[in-house]
Amino acid sequence: MKTEQIILAVDAMGGDNAPDIVIDGIRLALRDFAKTGKDVFFKLFGDENKVKPLLAKYRIPEDKYELIHTPDYIKMDDKVAIALRSGKKSSLWLANEAVKRGEASAVVSSGNTGCLMAFSKVILGTMSGIHRPALVSLMPTKTGVCVMLDLGANTECDARNLVEFAIMGDAYAKAVLKIGKPSIGILNIGSEEMKGKEELRQASRILRQTALAENFVGFVEPDDIGKNRVDVVVADGFSGNIALKAIEGTARLVFGLLKEYIKGSLLAKIGLPMFIPALKRMKNKMNPGRYNGAMFIGLKGISIKSHGGSDAFGFANALKVSVDAVSHDLKGCISTQLDNINFDEIEQRLANENEQK
Amino acid sequence: MKTEQIILAVDAMGGDNAPDIVIDGIRLALRDFAKTGKDVFFKLFGDENKVKPLLAKYRIPEDKYELIHTPDYIKMDDKVAIALRSGKKSSLWLANEAVKRGEASAVVSSGNTGCLMAFSKVILGTMSGIHRPALVSLMPTKTGVCVMLDLGANTECDARNLVEFAIMGDAYAKAVLKIGKPSIGILNIGSEEMKGKEELRQASRILRQTALAENFVGFVEPDDIGKNRVDVVVADGFSGNIALKAIEGTARLVFGLLKEYIKGSLLAKIGLPMFIPALKRMKNKMNPGRYNGAMFIGLKGISIKSHGGSDAFGFANALKVSVDAVSHDLKGCISTQLDNINFDEIEQRLANENEQK
Repeated sequence: MKTEQIILAVDAMGGDNAPDIVIDGIRLALRDFAKTGKDVFFKLFGDENKVKPLLAKYRIPEDKYELIHTPDYIKMDDKVAIALRSGKKSSLWLANEAVKRGEASAVVSSGNTGCLMAFSKVILGTMSGIHRPALVSLMPTKTGVCVMLDLGANTECDARNLVEFAIMGDAYAKAVLKIGKPSIGILNIGSEEMKGKEELRQASRILRQTALAENFVGFVEPDDIGKNRVDVVVADGFSGNIALKAIEGTARLVFGLLKEYIKGSLLAKIGLPMFIPALKRMKNKMNPGRYNGAMFIGLKGISIKSHGGSDAFGFANALKVSVDAVSHDLKGCISTQLDNINFDEIEQRLANENEQK
Repeated sequence: MKTEQIILAVDAMGGDNAPDIVIDGIRLALRDFAKTGKDVFFKLFGDENKVKPLLAKYRIPEDKYELIHTPDYIKMDDKVAIALRSGKKSSLWLANEAVKRGEASAVVSSGNTGCLMAFSKVILGTMSGIHRPALVSLMPTKTGVCVMLDLGANTECDARNLVEFAIMGDAYAKAVLKIGKPSIGILNIGSEEMKGKEELRQASRILRQTALAENFVGFVEPDDIGKNRVDVVVADGFSGNIALKAIEGTARLVFGLLKEYIKGSLLAKIGLPMFIPALKRMKNKMNPGRYNGAMFIGLKGISIKSHGGSDAFGFANALKVSVDAVSHDLKGCISTQLDNINFDEIEQRLANENEQK
C-alpha cells in the first residue's frame, strides 16, 4: 500500500538560527519519517545562496524537496503592519500562499510570530465563528499531556476571545487526545471566582451558560497544569506565553543544576550509568524541544509556529507536529466540532454581559 | 552578649491548613533560631480553642509566645472591601495593629493576600513616593538567586506602579543581596522593545530616563529568570504570580516524575544511595518552601505573606524571612534608598507619557 505524500511549505529563513537549524531539522525529521513510513516532501522558501550549501551539507535527498528561491524574508523584529504591506515577496508570505493554493498541506516557520499569525490569517482565513486564531500545543503533565492555548498569538484578549479559545481547545483535545468530554479550565492567579481580571471572570460566566458548562471546572492556576487538573488550559496569550516560558525555563534550570550537582559529586559520577535510563526518561518527558511546534488553531489551513530559538531537534518536532496535523485531518476535525457550536447563543451572552457593565 | 529579642505578630488563623501548620511551623523555626542564636518571641492572634491544643501538641515553650484570643478571622475567599469594613476584630487586623503600635516588628500571615495587603496598607501606611506596595521575594537561579516583584499583590498595574516596583526592587537587592548596582529587567513575552503591553513599554521608556537607566537592561522573558540575566525582575502582579506558580509547579512536577522514574528502574533504585547527595542539593535549591515568605515592600512596617497552601516547613521559612527582614533593618535600608529617588522627575516623565497618548 502506497501512503499518501504530505507536502509541507517551509519558511527556511525564519528563526534565530535559520536557515541552518531548518535544514538540519529536516534531516532529523526525514530520519524519523522513514522509520514511521511517512512520505513527506518539503517546499522550501528561502535564499538559495544560503539554503543550497546547507542542503548539500546535511545531505537532504533531492527527491524530498523543491527549493523556491526567495531572497526576501521577514526579520524577527519586523513590525506586522509594515510586513503586511511590504512583505508579499517574502519566504513567509509565499509559504502561506502555497498552502492557500493547495500546493502544500501546512506551512511551518520559526520566524516572527506576529507576522506568521497575520499572514496566515490574511491568506488562509479564519474558520467560521472564530475572530482570532490562537497558538495551541500540548504540555507535559504528571500523567500525560494537556492542551494549552493561547500560547502567545494574542497579547490582549477579551472575554469573546477566551470563550472561542475554550471552544477550539475542546475541539483540539477531542481530535488529538481522543477524549470524549475534555475538562476545561481558565488560567488565573487563583481558583476562586472573584480572582483575577474582569475578562477572565466574564469568560468564565459565559462558559457556564454554554454547552461546554458541564466540563468547565472554572479557574486553574499555573501549578495545576503539571497536576493535569484539566485537559484544556485556556489562557490569554500574554499569560499563556509567560507560563509556557516559565515552565520551559524551569525545566532547563533543573536539568542544568542536576548536571552540575552530579559533576560535583564523585559518588554520583560513579553511579551515573545506573541512573541514565531514569534521567533519559525525564529528559524525554520534559525537553521543551519535544513540545515544539504550536498550531495556529482557528484558521482554514494548517499553520505551525516553531520556537524562534529552537534547535534542529525542536524544529524536527515542529515538522512532525505539522505532519500529524495533516494526517489526522485536524483542520477537518476542528471545523466539524465548531459546526456544533451555537455561536449566536454566545453572541447573546456576550451582549448580556456588556449590557450589565 | 545578649542578642536583642525580635517579636513577630503571627496571624495563626490564615491559610488553607491553619492553625496547624502555623504552630508546627513555629516549632520548626524555633529549632532553627536556637541554632543560629536568635531570640524570637511570637504574639499569636487566633482562636484559643483551636490554637491552645496545638501549642501543647507541638510543645512550644511557654516563654516563647503570647496567645491573644481572637475568635474572629478572615477567610481565604473574603472580599477585601467587606473585610475592611467588618474585619477589625479579626486576627489579621489585630496582628497588623500590633506592628503599628510597636509591640511587634513584623506581621506574618498565610491568609488572604488581598486582605493582608489592604490591612497592612491601611494600618501601616505606604512609604513616601510609593502608591502601591508589591510582593517581593527571592527566586532560584543557575548561579544563585534574584529578586522578583510584584508576585501578586496587584492584579492590574500601570506604568507608574511598574516604575515604583523597579525602584523598590533595586533597593531590596542592594539591601538583601548586597549588590552595589543591581541590573533590572521588566518581565515580558519578548525582549524586543515593541513587544507586550503598552504599560510595560511605557515603564521601560520612563526607566530609561531615570537614574536607574544605567542598570536597566529592558525586557526579560520568564526563561531569563533562571538564567540570572538580571538581579531584579519587575513584573505586573498578574504575570509575576503566573510565572511564580508556573516555576513552582514545574519544580514539583520534575521532582515527582524523577521519583517515579527512579522507582520504576531497578538499576536506579540500587544506585540511589550514590545519588542522594546530588538530589538533596537539588531539592534544597528548588524546593518552593525554601522561598516561601514574600514581603510587602513599600510599607512603613514589615508585613510578610506566606503561601496560602504552605506546609509547616514553608511557614517556618516565612518566619525566618520575617526575622531576617527585621534584623537587617530592611525597612530602614529601603526607606534610605527611596530618599535618593527623584519622584518629582518620575512624575514629570509620567505626565509627558500621558500627554503623548
